[in-house]
Amino acid sequence: METRRAEAFSDGVFAVAITVLVFDLLPIGAGVGGGLGHVLLKEWPKYAAYVVSFLTIGIVWLNHHTLMAHLRRVSRMLLVLNLVLMMCVVAVPFPTALIAEHLTEHTGGGIAAAVTYGLVMVAMSVAFSAMWLYLGLHAGEVAREPDFQPSLRTTIRFSGGLVAYVVATLVAIVSPGAAVAMYGAIAVYYLFEHLPDPTAGPEAAGRDSRSGSDQCRSDP
Amino acid sequence: METRRAEAFSDGVFAVAITVLVFDLLPIGAGVGGGLGHVLLKEWPKYAAYVVSFLTIGIVWLNHHTLMAHLRRVSRMLLVLNLVLMMCVVAVPFPTALIAEHLTEHTGGGIAAAVTYGLVMVAMSVAFSAMWLYLGLHAGEVAREPDFQPSLRTTIRFSGGLVAYVVATLVAIVSPGAAVAMYGAIAVYYLFEHLPDPTAGPEAAGRDSRSGSDQCRSDP
Amino acid sequence: METRRAEAFSDGVFAVAITVLVFDLLPIGAGVGGGLGHVLLKEWPKYAAYVVSFLTIGIVWLNHHTLMAHLRRVSRMLLVLNLVLMMCVVAVPFPTALIAEHLTEHTGGGIAAAVTYGLVMVAMSVAFSAMWLYLGLHAGEVAREPDFQPSLRTTIRFSGGLVAYVVATLVAIVSPGAAVAMYGAIAVYYLFEHLPDPTAGPEAAGRDSRSGSDQCRSDP
Amino acid sequence: METRRAEAFSDGVFAVAITVLVFDLLPIGAGVGGGLGHVLLKEWPKYAAYVVSFLTIGIVWLNHHTLMAHLRRVSRMLLVLNLVLMMCVVAVPFPTALIAEHLTEHTGGGIAAAVTYGLVMVAMSVAFSAMWLYLGLHAGEVAREPDFQPSLRTTIRFSGGLVAYVVATLVAIVSPGAAVAMYGAIAVYYLFEHLPDPTAGPEAAGRDSRSGSDQCRSDP
Repeated sequence: METRRAEAFSDGVFAVAITVLVFDLLPIGAGVGGGLGHVLLKEWPKYAAYVVSFLTIGIVWLNHHTLMAHLRRVSRMLLVLNLVLMMCVVAVPFPTALIAEHLTEHTGGGIAAAVTYGLVMVAMSVAFSAMWLYLGLHAGEVAREPDFQPSLRTTIRFSGGLVAYVVATLVAIVSPGAAVAMYGAIAVYYLFEHLPDPTAGPEAAGRDSRSGSDQCRSDP
Repeated sequence: METRRAEAFSDGVFAVAITVLVFDLLPIGAGVGGGLGHVLLKEWPKYAAYVVSFLTIGIVWLNHHTLMAHLRRVSRMLLVLNLVLMMCVVAVPFPTALIAEHLTEHTGGGIAAAVTYGLVMVAMSVAFSAMWLYLGLHAGEVAREPDFQPSLRTTIRFSGGLVAYVVATLVAIVSPGAAVAMYGAIAVYYLFEHLPDPTAGPEAAGRDSRSGSDQCRSDP
Repeated sequence: METRRAEAFSDGVFAVAITVLVFDLLPIGAGVGGGLGHVLLKEWPKYAAYVVSFLTIGIVWLNHHTLMAHLRRVSRMLLVLNLVLMMCVVAVPFPTALIAEHLTEHTGGGIAAAVTYGLVMVAMSVAFSAMWLYLGLHAGEVAREPDFQPSLRTTIRFSGGLVAYVVATLVAIVSPGAAVAMYGAIAVYYLFEHLPDPTAGPEAAGRDSRSGSDQCRSDP
Repeated sequence: METRRAEAFSDGVFAVAITVLVFDLLPIGAGVGGGLGHVLLKEWPKYAAYVVSFLTIGIVWLNHHTLMAHLRRVSRMLLVLNLVLMMCVVAVPFPTALIAEHLTEHTGGGIAAAVTYGLVMVAMSVAFSAMWLYLGLHAGEVAREPDFQPSLRTTIRFSGGLVAYVVATLVAIVSPGAAVAMYGAIAVYYLFEHLPDPTAGPEAAGRDSRSGSDQCRSDP
């Protein structure tokens, strides 16, 4: 199967999942005691959760494209792994809603919300690392460069992200607020610390020198 | 009409329908008695229903692409059949929500939910089989290979899926839980037991040898 | 501006709007008195409204593509008209929800719901006819064939659809049920009575004979 | 990274965000006192908010495409700015819902709603201006024409939009209704007063004269 279709489907899912986050903002407190302005200010965990989750899905989308750019074709196993990753991405608005509603509770609701958020992030990291690992182990079958091997930097990067989410999830048991701050910090960090895109730079220049029909296929 | 447009529209519908499943997770029990953590653990039918429906729509998406890859063009009748299939795919979050909310009820709600789920699956199987049957009967008009005939394996595969869903729906009358387990098992089975993709293997190699402009048309 | 972008955006809107219809199915009657099975059977206006609206949006999507296939480029005015059409398409789930909830009420709610549905259909027909009219009046500027004129059949077809929706809206004042049946009948009728697609048949054959780079541009 | 991917993702987000606006129409007042017809007429702020936000997102989509058409490639910083712009676009249904529900309140709810709407518009204008500014400052790195400079007209246009939204937000503190009318007027004004599209006119003609493989890449 061509990568184009898996990419188009994944892009659609990313776009919808990231937009669905607005529903975590939508339901305004029913009993608007103290005026709407007051309610809007009090609901700051909503906005924080919205921004953190938006940036997080945005980064996974960027990383997903970097990974797809290494692929020549997709195997059935890779499609299944991609489906599992999508299942995690689509689920993100769920723990986001939990944090938006329960972060400031004192009855343990904040802990349950922040831990659930962390577990979804860990699952997403594991699914993404599994795709990356599969790419390394089956490069001959699916990669553009048959002898492709993830660089040490890439490996450290993904392991680092996974470890950071595990630590933040453990922190959530003690302090939900600190955990949410960590989720945000992880998102901002990876927004700028990024993998080299195989479609840019010298490698891309190499690809540009290929035949015209090849470009037709890879560019759209 | 070109297949590209029907494919792009269907891909969009698949991506949105699969993402809409998250709404079955979102509404958290209003009266959170016993703490949020407790509520989250008690709501396991939600997560089970989410995973089963996500994998099911994922597989229909994969099969849909396999079918589309056999097409050269789409007729009006095929577009109508495709619209009926989409109507079933888009409806999936509805019985998923029923199962998420009513599976563990003892008042017959679980049975109604699991039977409704099964009926939507049966309708989806019938719509998909109808498209496949149409392709076989009108190969000269719509297929890439004018003498295309679905293989015996394909026929057994689709009949098998349809029979499995009918059986699971009947099981739902007795045991909703067992039926949901069957829906899940059917999804996992078809995730790995799959049709050969006409764009891969020897046929694809044959297509690759065609002229450049042809590749421009078929690849994007 | 190229038609491709307007088409991709419109396709996305169509795909999302048609999927949003499932939300009209989702909320199950809160007080499930008499068992879930009973409630599901009693809610037949929901399913009827879902099917009618799904087919209606599906047909507008088909007609939209037929119209776009006549275009070489889009002007600003055409984009504005397209935006107005999209505004009507996106609104469809709203009167659908009204019908789903209020059709069987005896207090006039059914009339208000069916009339609102009709008004949205009329607005959609007017927007679509305006686009078609614009195409005829500015063929030199935007059409593939500079001397393009809508055929008599096309004109009758769109006028007919508009008149049918006006009549059904008037019927809704007397009998909401009869009006909904008419909305359904209009959808089914246009599903099979359709405009010739300019990308099929002799014209398309003519386009196929153009240069390779032209095909690259028009096909994806 | 190629612009195509950022464009496809953004297009998806625009299409979903604009469709999500229908949810602001959907929930019909629970206690339907005075008949559904009466309720529907009384809910005019809903329809006004829907139309204004629909046109606003539509215009941002158009401007986004004009900007993207100037790009040869996207840098990481540009992707981050684009993600921030998308975060504002996706948020639009939130203040739209506030206006739909609270505009006619006398307890200050209308002011809070209209001010929130204005703040999101201001944030969106700032994000869009930042992308445009970045394009001007890093033309050599990302623009199609290495010496690209935004024209005086473009600069006035965006500054004007930003100033208009700031003024309307200040007006909202005194009169929410007047502010909403201003948001609508700004949308209608920019619907017709538009930037020249770099893919149309003499420049586009210049691009058309490039090699065939180049067209394959840029057109789809």
